[in-house]
Amino acid sequence: MSGGIQHGWPSRFPAGRTAYVNGRYLPHIQAGVHIEDRGLQFADAIYEVVGVADGHFLDEEEHLDRLKRSLGEIGMALPMSRAALKLALREMARRNRIDSGLIYLQVTRGVVRRDHAVPDRPPRPTLIITARRLDPIGIRNRQKQGVHVITCRDERWARCDIKSTALLPNVLAKTTARKAGAFEAWLVDKEGFVTEGASTSVWIVDADGSIITRDLSNAILPGVTRLVILKAAEAAQLPVRERKFTVAEALAANEAFITAATLGATPVISIDGVPVGGGKPGPIVRRIQELYEHAVDIRSRAQA
Amino acid sequence: MSGGIQHGWPSRFPAGRTAYVNGRYLPHIQAGVHIEDRGLQFADAIYEVVGVADGHFLDEEEHLDRLKRSLGEIGMALPMSRAALKLALREMARRNRIDSGLIYLQVTRGVVRRDHAVPDRPPRPTLIITARRLDPIGIRNRQKQGVHVITCRDERWARCDIKSTALLPNVLAKTTARKAGAFEAWLVDKEGFVTEGASTSVWIVDADGSIITRDLSNAILPGVTRLVILKAAEAAQLPVRERKFTVAEALAANEAFITAATLGATPVISIDGVPVGGGKPGPIVRRIQELYEHAVDIRSRAQA
Repeated sequence: MSGGIQHGWPSRFPAGRTAYVNGRYLPHIQAGVHIEDRGLQFADAIYEVVGVADGHFLDEEEHLDRLKRSLGEIGMALPMSRAALKLALREMARRNRIDSGLIYLQVTRGVVRRDHAVPDRPPRPTLIITARRLDPIGIRNRQKQGVHVITCRDERWARCDIKSTALLPNVLAKTTARKAGAFEAWLVDKEGFVTEGASTSVWIVDADGSIITRDLSNAILPGVTRLVILKAAEAAQLPVRERKFTVAEALAANEAFITAATLGATPVISIDGVPVGGGKPGPIVRRIQELYEHAVDIRSRAQA
Repeated sequence: MSGGIQHGWPSRFPAGRTAYVNGRYLPHIQAGVHIEDRGLQFADAIYEVVGVADGHFLDEEEHLDRLKRSLGEIGMALPMSRAALKLALREMARRNRIDSGLIYLQVTRGVVRRDHAVPDRPPRPTLIITARRLDPIGIRNRQKQGVHVITCRDERWARCDIKSTALLPNVLAKTTARKAGAFEAWLVDKEGFVTEGASTSVWIVDADGSIITRDLSNAILPGVTRLVILKAAEAAQLPVRERKFTVAEALAANEAFITAATLGATPVISIDGVPVGGGKPGPIVRRIQELYEHAVDIRSRAQA
């Protein structure tokens, strides 16, 4: 293990938080990576965000499955055994006293002299884990009230199925949304179809009551919450279809909503300033919220 | 200024090197950034690489112009005055005794609690500068002998004119090239036109002796070496055209070459295993090398 490394600016993070970096539990405020970490220089890194509710990890196995898949797509393996990774996640939740919140996990290619190509003998990967509390009441209120979204051109790369940290296009889209007073940006491909949100999966409910979300491909991330909701909706015999839809279809839809690990199912009440579904959350998204919470409860009990 | 930050793995960098991070000159081995630096979490960062030859910075003004432009495109400004930045670059060259080599400069959005959107009051940006020696004989030999390239599908985002660190697609292409025994990957768009290399600008010389390189757009980086060579070739009244070309045209060309800050003009002697221009460097690329060296000499004298 090397000694301390240094950076310049004072950190604004609250004291008392713990971060995990490469096998060590450190004060969050002091945790860093080397300036030649390939995560920093090349976005040569994969990440996951796992929600925690009432002390339980949400859809942990699916998140670890996806982490493994994303790493595999860029020629990497899990940085430690799945069991060891789960222990570290639990230890981070415990040390940070996370009852409701999230665990962020990032694996980079590691530290090596800068060169675009991955070396024949790659360095040891960097593993970072952080944990943060989230206010469950804030999440719940957003689920009750709904959010506004805008649409942006999808400018991302061709492999959005890989959950990499090459997120600058997502950053720019989300920032545009926030400046417009919206919560999320829906990304629209060249053919006019919505791909996904800057950090969410997108859904609509059409006039027949069919629940529609874009089918999986290289164009979107295989959302974990999306997958769990799809299964729960199918089990409840709700009509679900995985297919592309346009912005016009979304505007004409009965309902629209977004899903993500830290949001559950959150209603969309306007798109580009135009109300959707009468400008308020509809009955289907409420049903989806119930089904998702039920699915989470069952899994939590199985986990406990 | 905060205290030391810590990371886990032993560094393989040679002792005696100095890095610059946020106003401080540090032992390279100890230099780091916080784990919640947006450069690490979101590739929310811009970089430049400036070549150094015989103690002179190559095309420094053009690199600083491009840095400013890229930062502006993502809503950022230079992290300090241009004069202060130039002093820091010189100090880094001096402290690291760089006679022939490169200076790497990275500006990130800074450290703040993770959220895709840039906060209304953004954090102070992170500025990192590293310096490294390069063997001028190695560069010269490559310029004499030429290199092999392969072609790959261009999977990058829609704003490749921004020199951001969201480089994972470039990393994957360059790694594919190296595994195939090639030096560079030429990226090919959906229409079959070559955009650029994973970290170079691309050029061909057609049967009439015209020197062709792709015209500027959002699809390619405005290469600094490309620009200086274009001007030098025009001043020497060589026939130059900025337009798209296909892989088939490149294979049928008299010559092909790549340019970059740390390569100058380097001949391409095969594409996907098929020899170009008889499989050896041609007269035009040699002429371009001379013109570029002459341009560099004139500028160095003006700088001194």
